[in-house]
Amino acid sequence: MSFETISWQPEGVVMIDQSRLPLEESYVTCATAEDVAGAIKTMVIRGAPAIGVAAAMGVALGMKKQLAAAGERGFWDRFESVCQLLAATRPTAVNLFWALERMRKVWQRAVDSGLVASEAVDILIAEACRIRQEDIETNRKLGALGAEIVPENARVLTHCNAGALACAGYGTALGVIRAAHEREKIRQVLADETRPLLQGARLTAWELQRDGIPVTLITDNMAAHFMGKGGVDLVVVGADRIAANGDTANKIGTYGVAILAREHRVPFYVAAPCSTIDFSLDSGDKIPIEERDRQEVLTVGGQYVAPPEVAVHNPAFDVTPAKYITGIITEKGIFKPEELAVHLCPD
Amino acid sequence: MSFETISWQPEGVVMIDQSRLPLEESYVTCATAEDVAGAIKTMVIRGAPAIGVAAAMGVALGMKKQLAAAGERGFWDRFESVCQLLAATRPTAVNLFWALERMRKVWQRAVDSGLVASEAVDILIAEACRIRQEDIETNRKLGALGAEIVPENARVLTHCNAGALACAGYGTALGVIRAAHEREKIRQVLADETRPLLQGARLTAWELQRDGIPVTLITDNMAAHFMGKGGVDLVVVGADRIAANGDTANKIGTYGVAILAREHRVPFYVAAPCSTIDFSLDSGDKIPIEERDRQEVLTVGGQYVAPPEVAVHNPAFDVTPAKYITGIITEKGIFKPEELAVHLCPD
Repeated sequence: MSFETISWQPEGVVMIDQSRLPLEESYVTCATAEDVAGAIKTMVIRGAPAIGVAAAMGVALGMKKQLAAAGERGFWDRFESVCQLLAATRPTAVNLFWALERMRKVWQRAVDSGLVASEAVDILIAEACRIRQEDIETNRKLGALGAEIVPENARVLTHCNAGALACAGYGTALGVIRAAHEREKIRQVLADETRPLLQGARLTAWELQRDGIPVTLITDNMAAHFMGKGGVDLVVVGADRIAANGDTANKIGTYGVAILAREHRVPFYVAAPCSTIDFSLDSGDKIPIEERDRQEVLTVGGQYVAPPEVAVHNPAFDVTPAKYITGIITEKGIFKPEELAVHLCPD
Repeated sequence: MSFETISWQPEGVVMIDQSRLPLEESYVTCATAEDVAGAIKTMVIRGAPAIGVAAAMGVALGMKKQLAAAGERGFWDRFESVCQLLAATRPTAVNLFWALERMRKVWQRAVDSGLVASEAVDILIAEACRIRQEDIETNRKLGALGAEIVPENARVLTHCNAGALACAGYGTALGVIRAAHEREKIRQVLADETRPLLQGARLTAWELQRDGIPVTLITDNMAAHFMGKGGVDLVVVGADRIAANGDTANKIGTYGVAILAREHRVPFYVAAPCSTIDFSLDSGDKIPIEERDRQEVLTVGGQYVAPPEVAVHNPAFDVTPAKYITGIITEKGIFKPEELAVHLCPD
């Protein structure tokens, strides 16, 4: 891979602008926590793990700027409001809250140990960079584990983008595909385009093509047709939040793909780091589902594709009940949905 | 309704330009059979019954122009090549071939009865206009029959556009919805946008809104989510070709919707005139499926939404096996798929 999804730089948090891909490969520098929050909201950066990294870096950046602007004055009172700013960006991906929680713990240690402000900033930055680095390592681990369940000569369908672009790097669902490709197991990836924001067409197709992994783009409504023709051996998708019972929130359309996969006896896997599992929710119906702006459905590239005044629904995610999920691929192993709590629950 | 999908006029065949809706309501006049063939290919006009009417009018127009240009010279040899020109436009919708067959029968009568060329043209024009008029009447009949199976306060999901725009008027699936709306049974229509060409977003939303029927637009991949929430009481779609066993070719995505409907115990109906049933094919796997240009998937409104060089699949239709179809609504009654041959087969 020759791009970096997100990195910490002296001038701020630098992200590849995913709203402009694939036609333009450009990078934006977020100079403030507000910039980072805006980038998450507008989906300059998206994907559950990447949002987590961005939020952590946003916190570090916010505190660094606070120190630079006002020194110790107000510094120790500022932390919670920076966290809240970032927490309010998007509701569904739990990695966001998980990353903020990690930053809170580091902050608490700084407070408890009586660090000076500059030291507190240093350890916040270090923690954010650690979250980023761990994410890449996690994805490589789960990718290698997941590659085991990919059959030889596989035709794999994926939905949305759970790739290097959705993470600090390598990817979750696409991490599995990358690892399987390294083992020469991939014959073809079918990428659902993933309306309304077309992450499959814009990001997955771009990312896989760039790595030389054979990818064919289809519209979301073609998946059943190709499954019916026997053209799909495996489905693997990412996740935005997994409840304790294995119910999985992911990009809108995932639930439908899971039903189609079961109907055609195609294994359906979710690939996600353990940080995506929310053991505080016993089932998926408690996962908050973000409703996004109607213009995302009404327009493509700024052009209207429907009567401008028509009513629209635009839920960004759906919840796939555990019963449709063959297995959940994590960095700690591959589990059946009902095994998650037994093997991974921290309590 | 305040638009006409297709009409015969002294200057030629006039069609509302469906490639420009909903943002521009304009009409094109086809002055030659070649113009009509081009309009079918480029989907200025689309929808199985409308394609049938257009083809019939194309034949009448071609022969009228032949007579005007060259009189009786070459007139009697020209008919078959005009038919072939129109037959070669799109392969899946059987109404096209059915309408050409009706025109051939009229032509044969003209030949057999020794009519002069101008009389032959007159009866061809009359037959094409009759096909158009019958289509509207057929749709009103099947709409009234279909309205019976729509529950009170119904939330109905439809895919693509099987509306007045897909026919000479009133519509098949939307004919059922219109008739149910006249009986105050419709609470909400969910319209799948129907990628790649967005007939749901561009045409169904426009057409229903214009008639004051409450419609909410969703992307194709949202259907499962709303079914899972209990938000869909009934699915009704059109058809491009129905095999003798009830297997139904319709716009790509229909098969997936049918599976989702069954999984959620939502009745799934096909609405189509008997002219859409092809008793010469015993099952749906023999229906030819048109593969259309890759640019339809890669671009929206001329803008690329994916890497321009990525591989693409673009089947325009899929086949829904009869087992997923609750009933087929025709102008002659509502039948289970397996009853079609018994009740309707002309042999």
